Amino acid sequence: MVRTVEWRNGTVVMIDQRLLPMQEVYRVCRDYREVARGITDMVVRGAPAIGVAAAFGIALGMAHARGDLPRAFDRICRIFAATRPTAVNLFWAIERMRRAFAEVRTRPAAEIRDALLQEARAIHREDIAANRALGLHGAALIPAGGQVLTHCNAGALATAGYGTALGVIRAAHDAGKRISVMATETRPFLQGARLTAWELRKDHIPATLITDSMVGHFMQRGGVSCVVVGADRIAANGDVANKIGTYTLAVLAK
Amino acid sequence: MVRTVEWRNGTVVMIDQRLLPMQEVYRVCRDYREVARGITDMVVRGAPAIGVAAAFGIALGMAHARGDLPRAFDRICRIFAATRPTAVNLFWAIERMRRAFAEVRTRPAAEIRDALLQEARAIHREDIAANRALGLHGAALIPAGGQVLTHCNAGALATAGYGTALGVIRAAHDAGKRISVMATETRPFLQGARLTAWELRKDHIPATLITDSMVGHFMQRGGVSCVVVGADRIAANGDVANKIGTYTLAVLAK
Repeated sequence: MVRTVEWRNGTVVMIDQRLLPMQEVYRVCRDYREVARGITDMVVRGAPAIGVAAAFGIALGMAHARGDLPRAFDRICRIFAATRPTAVNLFWAIERMRRAFAEVRTRPAAEIRDALLQEARAIHREDIAANRALGLHGAALIPAGGQVLTHCNAGALATAGYGTALGVIRAAHDAGKRISVMATETRPFLQGARLTAWELRKDHIPATLITDSMVGHFMQRGGVSCVVVGADRIAANGDVANKIGTYTLAVLAK
Repeated sequence: MVRTVEWRNGTVVMIDQRLLPMQEVYRVCRDYREVARGITDMVVRGAPAIGVAAAFGIALGMAHARGDLPRAFDRICRIFAATRPTAVNLFWAIERMRRAFAEVRTRPAAEIRDALLQEARAIHREDIAANRALGLHGAALIPAGGQVLTHCNAGALATAGYGTALGVIRAAHDAGKRISVMATETRPFLQGARLTAWELRKDHIPATLITDSMVGHFMQRGGVSCVVVGADRIAANGDVANKIGTYTLAVLAK
């Protein structure tokens, strides 16, 4: 499985998604500001992955913080909050770290650091577990032998691992449904061409890369069984905010 | 006006569309094989422009042909017919040149050459006249102050000049309708981003470049008054064959 972001020997390690698929480079962050810059500069992207990166980044920052720890904590959280305004998981992860910090703030520094790292690890672990569960639920809806269209990258690279939309596709593939995937290249940043196609190839799931404008043609020909996409946010009424082009897909699918 | 392809002092001159919008380079072809290669290699593209280029190319080839002229003519026509199978204007232009040749084939070489050049010039002139007429008819359908969406490049660069879809837009603009244009970038070859945006800018027509997948979003917001596109071919029942993505646009517009 792709290791998008993880804690390794007191550092935060992230695969540099800007260099995929040509190069597989892992960035080792020894300073929390490198993690924050990694979010700003698109080294890591995808709302869940950003949340996990920020949680590990806060734990990393506090591991090196000296003096007034509550003040240092606030400063670090503010820096992460400014990295990516559209990722709701970012603010959710920061809030979880805040609550974890509030519970131990009067304890010795070593205990605070340990509690924050444990919380970040829990966020990481829970995200993978949530993706796996989502994959199983979603896979039940995918027809055997179907052609599944997806847009952008809601894969292992967008999460702590396994993926949301690609989690559904992976679970359907693992269940022996013999599906194939059609991935849009996803302009302007090409996450589909660079990331989704790369992930699917790594997992030996049959996939075809198409330009965004080809979707209507293939749907008209009957070549698309269903569409599975990620979501930046989902409102209580079911409205979804997601990568540009998702609305176009929804109209075409309808 | 952009000079897409023209006859100049015994040569065929074409703007190299592969280098636009960064460089405005004109290729001077002294041999008909350079013209044919220009069609194959996308120096010139757009069905009407290809037809005109082939007609001038045949006239150029015959200007230098010696010996058995009917045999040379057949060889030259076969080479042009093999350059771009999707452009119906190519075969139509070759057929016109064949008819012109048939009328004068028993005359002296100089007369044959002159008749062929006159026919190519007529094709060039008639294409511009047709675009102008098409522009006037189409402009009547464009609402004043409207936002017109277009896909790919059906502009001066796709024709002998003025353009078909962009001819309609130009005529509406010239009529003082104060329109603005939304141009899709048109993946995979980016004719919208490279050519249409460049043409509109040259003519000072307000234009916004968007990715192909953004169309649904802008239509949903009410930001698109109408859609005007070119056509590679139109069947008698009104069916249209055009650049990939046109069907997607049609479904969204509906």
